[in-house]
Amino acid sequence: MTDALPRGFRFAGVAAGIKKTGAADFAAVLSDATCSAAGVFTRNTFPAAPVLYDRELLASNPHGLRGAVVNAGCANACTGEEGLADAAEMARLAEAAFGAPPRSIAVMSTGVIGPRLPMDRIAAGAQAAAAALSTGSAAAAAAAIMTTDTRPKTAVRAAGSARLWGMAKGAGMIHPNMATMLSVIVTDAAVGPDELQGLLRAAVDRSFNSISIDGDMSTNDTVLVLANGAAGAVDADVFAAALDDLCTDLAQQIVRDGEGATKFISVRVRSAASDDDARRAAKAVANSPLVKTAFYGGDANWGRILAAVGYSGAAVDSSRAHLWIAAGTEDAFDSAGRLQLVGHGRPLPYSEEAATAIFGGAEIAVTVDLGLGEGSTTVWTCDLSHAYVDINGHYRT
Amino acid sequence: MTDALPRGFRFAGVAAGIKKTGAADFAAVLSDATCSAAGVFTRNTFPAAPVLYDRELLASNPHGLRGAVVNAGCANACTGEEGLADAAEMARLAEAAFGAPPRSIAVMSTGVIGPRLPMDRIAAGAQAAAAALSTGSAAAAAAAIMTTDTRPKTAVRAAGSARLWGMAKGAGMIHPNMATMLSVIVTDAAVGPDELQGLLRAAVDRSFNSISIDGDMSTNDTVLVLANGAAGAVDADVFAAALDDLCTDLAQQIVRDGEGATKFISVRVRSAASDDDARRAAKAVANSPLVKTAFYGGDANWGRILAAVGYSGAAVDSSRAHLWIAAGTEDAFDSAGRLQLVGHGRPLPYSEEAATAIFGGAEIAVTVDLGLGEGSTTVWTCDLSHAYVDINGHYRT
Repeated sequence: MTDALPRGFRFAGVAAGIKKTGAADFAAVLSDATCSAAGVFTRNTFPAAPVLYDRELLASNPHGLRGAVVNAGCANACTGEEGLADAAEMARLAEAAFGAPPRSIAVMSTGVIGPRLPMDRIAAGAQAAAAALSTGSAAAAAAAIMTTDTRPKTAVRAAGSARLWGMAKGAGMIHPNMATMLSVIVTDAAVGPDELQGLLRAAVDRSFNSISIDGDMSTNDTVLVLANGAAGAVDADVFAAALDDLCTDLAQQIVRDGEGATKFISVRVRSAASDDDARRAAKAVANSPLVKTAFYGGDANWGRILAAVGYSGAAVDSSRAHLWIAAGTEDAFDSAGRLQLVGHGRPLPYSEEAATAIFGGAEIAVTVDLGLGEGSTTVWTCDLSHAYVDINGHYRT
Repeated sequence: MTDALPRGFRFAGVAAGIKKTGAADFAAVLSDATCSAAGVFTRNTFPAAPVLYDRELLASNPHGLRGAVVNAGCANACTGEEGLADAAEMARLAEAAFGAPPRSIAVMSTGVIGPRLPMDRIAAGAQAAAAALSTGSAAAAAAAIMTTDTRPKTAVRAAGSARLWGMAKGAGMIHPNMATMLSVIVTDAAVGPDELQGLLRAAVDRSFNSISIDGDMSTNDTVLVLANGAAGAVDADVFAAALDDLCTDLAQQIVRDGEGATKFISVRVRSAASDDDARRAAKAVANSPLVKTAFYGGDANWGRILAAVGYSGAAVDSSRAHLWIAAGTEDAFDSAGRLQLVGHGRPLPYSEEAATAIFGGAEIAVTVDLGLGEGSTTVWTCDLSHAYVDINGHYRT
């Protein structure tokens, strides 16, 4: 497995005592050589301190990063000037422990909003991570960034002679704008920071920004890419495709592990008046608590899907809308077994048994055709279950 | 109780066999004299057939209405041209049964989206309602429009010599734009249709459009007012205040009876850059599943409140925000017992016990002060509980 990883990166995942449970809660990724870096961050107007720190770091030193450290258990959000100083100190502690130059390590935090970072434990985590860094510890790093995630999320891809590896954490608050979603992606391709930023932005829009768990957007969302160039230059299209594919893989893993999720739902909207309209409509369906509880209950209550499209803001001619459902992922959108429920805005006769079988399954593919234009998109979401309420009713305890 | 009702109206609530349970499912309100009428309808782009019918009716005959009939158990939504014909036929059946002129009865429907109205039962309902109409049956009418509501919702107010009475149904899908919310309000004040429309629009914005259960907006939302003039003219300000107060009372009853609701939450945003910004921020808090599950769990996870404000689109300077919580309704916003959790964007030291006691209570008042301008608003919402998931996972069954 380590053979498939990008060359020149080491990883660590250790327990620093930040989580009350004693589980691993401090992760590190370190490149032997300096990297080009790019990042996409939350648009929340209460950005967490590490987001503010990393934005500035990437702007001022996009050619000179060496790695990143991530803690789980405390978000360092809504912590004011002191929080910003803590984020800078977390970076400094990691740089010192790793023997990396100043201003070369990015920082990320995830967990409860409000409390200050426990800096003594952050310091201990940096020391322990420095000792644990190895090319074989990628899985340990991915495990250490989990919060309510039930499993670590990693993916690898090849792009010509280069490789890409990424880890992500998600679970709750996943939304259009990447709520409480952290991802670190590393590659040995040689790519400049500007090109990397453009490719990352496009890949994130098609992946992490096309998923929804509950419609919330967090203070800490960050996707960071580091490229150390050890494998030399790679064809730009090949690299872009690999990055897209890697991000989509990680994003779908996040949906499948959404808080309390029991189903994976692909929502395609096509023939919308515009791509923006398609996105609005698909997101409204994916974010609707009524749709998501109906999926959870296996109830073929398709009227809620059209009702969500109807309040999305997308242009609609109700006499032109069609709706299909199918069992499976997006490969099933146009499958022979798909069931048309609505044609030209009217319910069609269908087998309630067949519909219930589809809604009762673990993977559901929904297509809404608005019959208006060329706009289309696909988003992924999960259902809303009792377990979601359990998890989020008592998150801090 | 009937003494307090507007003069010249009769009511009925009967079982027509539309609901599988056999419960009352057909309501009627009939005025002895013709009424001025006004209505506010859903903005969903898949409006249900009765919404289309009533919009046209009010536009063409705003001085000549006699009443309204409402069925529960079937929404007559997404039913195409046939559904529109069914809505017109429902009105015609009621007009014939009540001895009212053509085009004088408005129609409303609530229930499952998709199926056609069972017209034989609608016809039977109209006949039964005609036989049951009486001045003492207002409560029966309010009970007959319930779907997942656990209790009927009515309110009465005086405005000088005139009186107002209203009934509402709500429960799920309640949102900014009045999702699956029906209300019929009758008054014996003499008010022209144009004035009535303006007053209703303003009252609805401050009441039904300031509540949220789950952020969805239905295909059927309607608020209808009928004024028969039996009490003569009333001071316009007095009437407007009474209408506002009546609508707010009904709207708050809907929140308190939200699907699975265990708590009543008042969210005030003040010192926003504008009233629109205040509304955006308050709605984001009121609609956030993470905030609502935290309220349900009694977990003082206040960071989620600021995170929701942060993605609302409202202008924010994170160093100027303040947050208070208090036990009670909006009267408690500025009470001595309120607890400040955040000042100038930073967490303040507070008693975790006191915070937990407030979050654990049945009524919670939240104030967010953005420190930017004069914009303010208050919205009302409920928590997101296991019972919500139960109800909506199996609504049709």
